[in-house]
Amino acid sequence: MTECTSSPRGCSDRVEAVLRSGEPTPFLVTDLDVVADRYRTLRSALGDAEVFYAVKANAHPDLLAALVALGCCFDVASIGEVKACLDAGAGPGRLSFGNTVKRRSEVAAAHGLGVPNFAVDDAAELAKVVAAAPGAAVTVRLRCDGDGAAWPLSRKFGCGAEAAVDLLVEARRRGMGELGISFHVGSQQSRPEAWDEALAVVASVADAAADRGAPLGLVNLGGGLPSNYDAALPEVEGYAKVISDGLDRHLARHDVRLVIEPGRHLVAEAGVIQAEVLLVSRSDDDDGPRWIFLDVGVYTGLVEAMGEAIRYPMRTPHDGGPLCPSVVAGPTCDSVDVLYEVTPYQLPLALAEGDRVELFSAGAYTSACTTVGFNGFPPLREIVLPLS
Amino acid sequence: MTECTSSPRGCSDRVEAVLRSGEPTPFLVTDLDVVADRYRTLRSALGDAEVFYAVKANAHPDLLAALVALGCCFDVASIGEVKACLDAGAGPGRLSFGNTVKRRSEVAAAHGLGVPNFAVDDAAELAKVVAAAPGAAVTVRLRCDGDGAAWPLSRKFGCGAEAAVDLLVEARRRGMGELGISFHVGSQQSRPEAWDEALAVVASVADAAADRGAPLGLVNLGGGLPSNYDAALPEVEGYAKVISDGLDRHLARHDVRLVIEPGRHLVAEAGVIQAEVLLVSRSDDDDGPRWIFLDVGVYTGLVEAMGEAIRYPMRTPHDGGPLCPSVVAGPTCDSVDVLYEVTPYQLPLALAEGDRVELFSAGAYTSACTTVGFNGFPPLREIVLPLS
Repeated sequence: MTECTSSPRGCSDRVEAVLRSGEPTPFLVTDLDVVADRYRTLRSALGDAEVFYAVKANAHPDLLAALVALGCCFDVASIGEVKACLDAGAGPGRLSFGNTVKRRSEVAAAHGLGVPNFAVDDAAELAKVVAAAPGAAVTVRLRCDGDGAAWPLSRKFGCGAEAAVDLLVEARRRGMGELGISFHVGSQQSRPEAWDEALAVVASVADAAADRGAPLGLVNLGGGLPSNYDAALPEVEGYAKVISDGLDRHLARHDVRLVIEPGRHLVAEAGVIQAEVLLVSRSDDDDGPRWIFLDVGVYTGLVEAMGEAIRYPMRTPHDGGPLCPSVVAGPTCDSVDVLYEVTPYQLPLALAEGDRVELFSAGAYTSACTTVGFNGFPPLREIVLPLS
Repeated sequence: MTECTSSPRGCSDRVEAVLRSGEPTPFLVTDLDVVADRYRTLRSALGDAEVFYAVKANAHPDLLAALVALGCCFDVASIGEVKACLDAGAGPGRLSFGNTVKRRSEVAAAHGLGVPNFAVDDAAELAKVVAAAPGAAVTVRLRCDGDGAAWPLSRKFGCGAEAAVDLLVEARRRGMGELGISFHVGSQQSRPEAWDEALAVVASVADAAADRGAPLGLVNLGGGLPSNYDAALPEVEGYAKVISDGLDRHLARHDVRLVIEPGRHLVAEAGVIQAEVLLVSRSDDDDGPRWIFLDVGVYTGLVEAMGEAIRYPMRTPHDGGPLCPSVVAGPTCDSVDVLYEVTPYQLPLALAEGDRVELFSAGAYTSACTTVGFNGFPPLREIVLPLS
């Protein structure tokens, strides 16, 4: 069992200082130096690709401002995220409206503000973008099967290769700007080869579209780069190598700009949640695992624990002592608010009410997904440590 | 197919007026006259039971104030909900702290504010309440199996009958006040007999506890009374009859006060969500259902659509015309944000971008569960129509 461990990458001294400071729990502490490190490592590994941060992972204003300062671009899902990026100092030319489902008035508003690029995967959405953002760059999203991903995205988004060609040709015919293709191999993708497989399909689409007078200008490698939770995954350099080789092999005859859209990859490992044990309960079932109730749960940021898809590494004050199987649950009066039951955690037998525990790699999709106050529990509070 | 219909109970004229007024979508409109009607009907059906509204279903201040005015009591899950009720004008004596997982400092704070009753299902939690709220009334929560419920609650909450007896005896030994037993037959319970079965177990616990010097003073019938979504369910009078008969049959020899804790039952049918169609997509799969993308989804209040457990009746401007199978999805860049795919809705073929649709019976666990702004979409806005 790997849960009862320190962070996969460790905590900085200043994060540890916050964790020792007695702040009321639960809270998320996010270290922007870690974000900067992840950003620079990715830039260096994928030298040719522009990095568009997927704002949905964590839209804290200080985080966005730090990424602006680092030179990052932004993948936005709504006019709300457009405005958040502009407020953080990003020029509109650094934004890309990546949601394939957009309100018509938001397309027009974003276009009016100078956002240059809009994603589509359907003829009706393309017609909407043509009408509301005439001449804008258009990126057509290809469907991927999501094999190897923690959160496959295949059902809701993307179109097949033939439809993609038709959309590119139609966009050209309607006078739209630079044409792109995007894909998303699925969030927390463990197989670098997923990008190679997708790039082969991209190449077939690009060939067919070019033959019909719609040459490709941009390839968007999407998101899906993983963060470390409970299992060791390849380093980003391994992904970069597969992607670079795939581009050489499949797309050498196309002159394309490259874009990548990491969300989780940039921010997950920058965040640590500190929570408190509210109750250790054995109830009356001596044979079953005990229950550990924390003051954080699926309604206060741990939505990705649903289905037990993401297993946050945990640290406790009793690490090193004897372990026992433990169901981990959140504090609400809601049976859905159980984090790990199908596969209980191995946690120290000595764990007790009032102990503080840390959940590592918790910077993505936590403070972003907290509810406004279900059960009277306030939204997950976030403490952001600035770039040093 | 029943989805394409008007509300099970219809909308009041003033709700319809809001729906016609062109308010920006999405929003929830809640009619407090409907809440009052549900409250009075329940009071009249269960004449002996005090009604404790489960605040978690919808904690809007105007709703709480209206229930205070109606004479309602409140089931609270946290100190946040305690304060919300006090702010709405409830006396602390009308509150019951029903969460079996409580922060110790919140027990003490609630006790200090005058909250008289605390729920427990475990010896450690009882010890916490004894220490932090000495002399308070204690309600022991029995485990139910949840058969017949849309959201069974059996795994996380409650203890077995033997453990319940031990907890009651221990509470008496430690000088705690009135002793109660609660149970929860599971949310949206379709089988009235579930209460009868639970009351039989309550009686066996009450007998054993009385024999050991810990007589029961209160029976809390919990929540679980259903609201009408897509299927017709028994009226509340049917439930009341089963409960009343069950009390006579099982608990005649105990002199107990009765409490019931409806949440959904009081507020679900008082609320209507109006949303807008953002996109009707066929993508390139001619054989599959089309996709209807709304501007509301699981991150803006429709969390109970996950697993397709709750199917909100929908109304569209094209009802009566030809139908076709339609996957219904929310607006975020997240594959989890799909409302109905396993069992698509039958919706009018004529449904188009820009159409406004209504989701009925949407007053419970919607505005309460909306995120703070995932994907840049603001929390679900709520318009509350006052008691007339």
